[in-house]
Amino acid sequence: MAINTQVEADRNAPPITQILAEFVATHPSAGWSAEVDHEAHRTFLNWLGCAVGAANHESVNAALAAIQEFSPASQATILGRTERVDMAGAALINGISSHTFDFDDTHLKTIIHPAGPVASAVLALGEHIGASGRQILDALVIGIDVACRIGNCIYPNHYDRGWHITGSTGTVGAAAACARLLGLDVAKTQMALGIAASQPVGFREQFGTMTKPFHPGGAARAGLTSALLAKHGFTASTKALEAPRGMIQSYSTKYDWSEITTDLGKRFEISFNSYKPFACGIVIHPSIDACVQLKEKGVTPENLERIELKVHSLVLELTGKKTPKDGLEGKFSVYHGCAAGLVFGRASEDEYHDEIVTRPDMVELRAKVIATVDDSISEASADVTAVLKDGQKIHIFVKNAIGSLENPMTNNDLENKFKGLTHPIIGEQQTQDLIAICWDLKNQANLNKLLDLSK
Amino acid sequence: MAINTQVEADRNAPPITQILAEFVATHPSAGWSAEVDHEAHRTFLNWLGCAVGAANHESVNAALAAIQEFSPASQATILGRTERVDMAGAALINGISSHTFDFDDTHLKTIIHPAGPVASAVLALGEHIGASGRQILDALVIGIDVACRIGNCIYPNHYDRGWHITGSTGTVGAAAACARLLGLDVAKTQMALGIAASQPVGFREQFGTMTKPFHPGGAARAGLTSALLAKHGFTASTKALEAPRGMIQSYSTKYDWSEITTDLGKRFEISFNSYKPFACGIVIHPSIDACVQLKEKGVTPENLERIELKVHSLVLELTGKKTPKDGLEGKFSVYHGCAAGLVFGRASEDEYHDEIVTRPDMVELRAKVIATVDDSISEASADVTAVLKDGQKIHIFVKNAIGSLENPMTNNDLENKFKGLTHPIIGEQQTQDLIAICWDLKNQANLNKLLDLSK
Repeated sequence: MAINTQVEADRNAPPITQILAEFVATHPSAGWSAEVDHEAHRTFLNWLGCAVGAANHESVNAALAAIQEFSPASQATILGRTERVDMAGAALINGISSHTFDFDDTHLKTIIHPAGPVASAVLALGEHIGASGRQILDALVIGIDVACRIGNCIYPNHYDRGWHITGSTGTVGAAAACARLLGLDVAKTQMALGIAASQPVGFREQFGTMTKPFHPGGAARAGLTSALLAKHGFTASTKALEAPRGMIQSYSTKYDWSEITTDLGKRFEISFNSYKPFACGIVIHPSIDACVQLKEKGVTPENLERIELKVHSLVLELTGKKTPKDGLEGKFSVYHGCAAGLVFGRASEDEYHDEIVTRPDMVELRAKVIATVDDSISEASADVTAVLKDGQKIHIFVKNAIGSLENPMTNNDLENKFKGLTHPIIGEQQTQDLIAICWDLKNQANLNKLLDLSK
Repeated sequence: MAINTQVEADRNAPPITQILAEFVATHPSAGWSAEVDHEAHRTFLNWLGCAVGAANHESVNAALAAIQEFSPASQATILGRTERVDMAGAALINGISSHTFDFDDTHLKTIIHPAGPVASAVLALGEHIGASGRQILDALVIGIDVACRIGNCIYPNHYDRGWHITGSTGTVGAAAACARLLGLDVAKTQMALGIAASQPVGFREQFGTMTKPFHPGGAARAGLTSALLAKHGFTASTKALEAPRGMIQSYSTKYDWSEITTDLGKRFEISFNSYKPFACGIVIHPSIDACVQLKEKGVTPENLERIELKVHSLVLELTGKKTPKDGLEGKFSVYHGCAAGLVFGRASEDEYHDEIVTRPDMVELRAKVIATVDDSISEASADVTAVLKDGQKIHIFVKNAIGSLENPMTNNDLENKFKGLTHPIIGEQQTQDLIAICWDLKNQANLNKLLDLSK
């Protein structure tokens, strides 16, 4: 038996995921004793009786009424596509797609990506109920505030434990936003937050796989479902967030309640939202920014001996993949980010295509990046020295990368980023019209124009 | 800032669930500065571009293909009802209903209720794909084995932290069962387990609310969805369960890997499943059993001065509600269980109706039950002394209550329990036919007869 005290992780666990998968997939049918098989019949019989017996209970009525709101299935838009699915499915898929390129927004204090869970839930529900742009924005601001305040309360311990804080706080943020959009009263809103609290989504081990973007999607779906359950009278603990055996104390060994209560309704966490100029994890950005500057100073793969990179330990913990095998893994490689900055002068989605990440010159260049940990350097900074073949050294210290709160992207930067993403999907004219609708969102009577232009 | 070291919980947290609910429900529309509102537009624009940009990514294709499997919505049976919903909704609702009366099965070593998450997912998927009874049973045995082995690995620390272990391990068990039923290969099964690992459901603070039975339902839905995602090529970490920042090490500070690997495929955890004779938490059963015996010995509410109840501390921690306000809270009151045993000689669902729990004589009788903690008594036992008004004392020590592994319910007991649950819903003849089909499940070519009889 191993005891994990937050800091010490067991890195020598047997490959139990694989062991269990082999068991599940290959163990012979009825490969057990008659007694075991009989117990399976008893288990099934007993379960069936319990389910039939409670079929008309008020909790089942409430849950069924909520689930029936997801029918018929063609309720909501999948952004960028022509297919339509039910609201819950749309919330899930738009949450996945918006985080797929790791290019979305970041609440820097907690590393939460707040729009994924909240906006995905709000858009699906808002489309179905005919919400106005003003209602969408209200729900967005309030939902993001709830998610990020919970994040502030439990960060960094919760994140250090292994949770993907975007999905674990995002469920409650999405529920808050949907409760607001549905116009639930305080008591039902409290139930919605409570039901959502029971559905955290995501661990950091999933970084570099499709399940990472699943986290905001799953959180969006869970939050939306929770609000609909509450609407129909489903109940949860009134103290689901703060109780000793509630969400926050189960999640985290650190919690600062004042982060939730102080200046609530006065300070809004969306004010501290930031947007990524580079299509990868935020902690890589200062390193890329530095390498872009090195390229501008004449450093090339040809004249470079090595890059000496000094960063905070969290940077290597999160993005220390030295030899990424594909585009998705490249997003978690500070080495690839540096190589992209030096070769292309940028790190947009194109620089994370599989064929770029696996290109021999990129593999070679990544090998030239020597990263070391220096915790005196902030997570938001990077200290980069290019050592050239002729012995020359060029030193760049990036205190705050482009896209940070101190050095934010302009509206024009945001529009250019948007165009780079949407031109291949919906074309130039439609992109231009869609941007105009977005800036005018608060005056839109409903989402029809926006959604028509989004696919 | 409070530091929670597992044992010490903060019981003086501010009512943040309510505070946030009031904020969400009542803060005025656009009740913030123009800068905040502009940031909301920037956040929305940036999110929308990311979602549209990734619309044709392979992860979005896989997720959409999985979600489209949930359409059209009339795929699956709600047990005991005529409505039909999609597979995911049916898994959710049958998981809720089967745990609503807290009357289902218990894997005593971990207090997991394994059928709820696993059978609910299996039945919904099995109906849709036309699975045989044999396939259902295989999936059930294997899914329960996976959930309970993970439970064995992390119990009791994970539970002590506050997690409802049924919902947190049940997602992976349900995913295993559905992967098996879909015939996924080892690699895809591994992905299914990994995707599910990111979706634990439930905290103990929810006990006594509808969200407690939501936990097995949510786990069933998450597991089913994970298996379908894996089928369509969605990926997760291959080490999602065991990695330092994976599910188990994020969940729990105790883990014993050998509980998962030892005798896998030889010892089956379903062998250790048990079934409840009383419609409440398992830890109350010895106390009820003792009070039923007291009634048989002539103790009545009229001749009783008080009941002296000595139990393990966990009993009062889980079921210490002295003044339950309704039936659902009554399930978490060892006091009500004792009163029901003494008055009715049983504690079936009928004894947990609101009108029984709130009856003045039951309120009065509960007040006569004086519970004290004695950790030298096992959680499976109860030491009960009735002190009569004439001074006489009658002492009962229940080592293993009826329904325990040492004192299991017979098949006949199970059938009688089943009838008590299903007679009001589907009638006597249909119940009798359904029981016969259940005992013959391994020979059923498909689930049609069983499902026809279940509603």
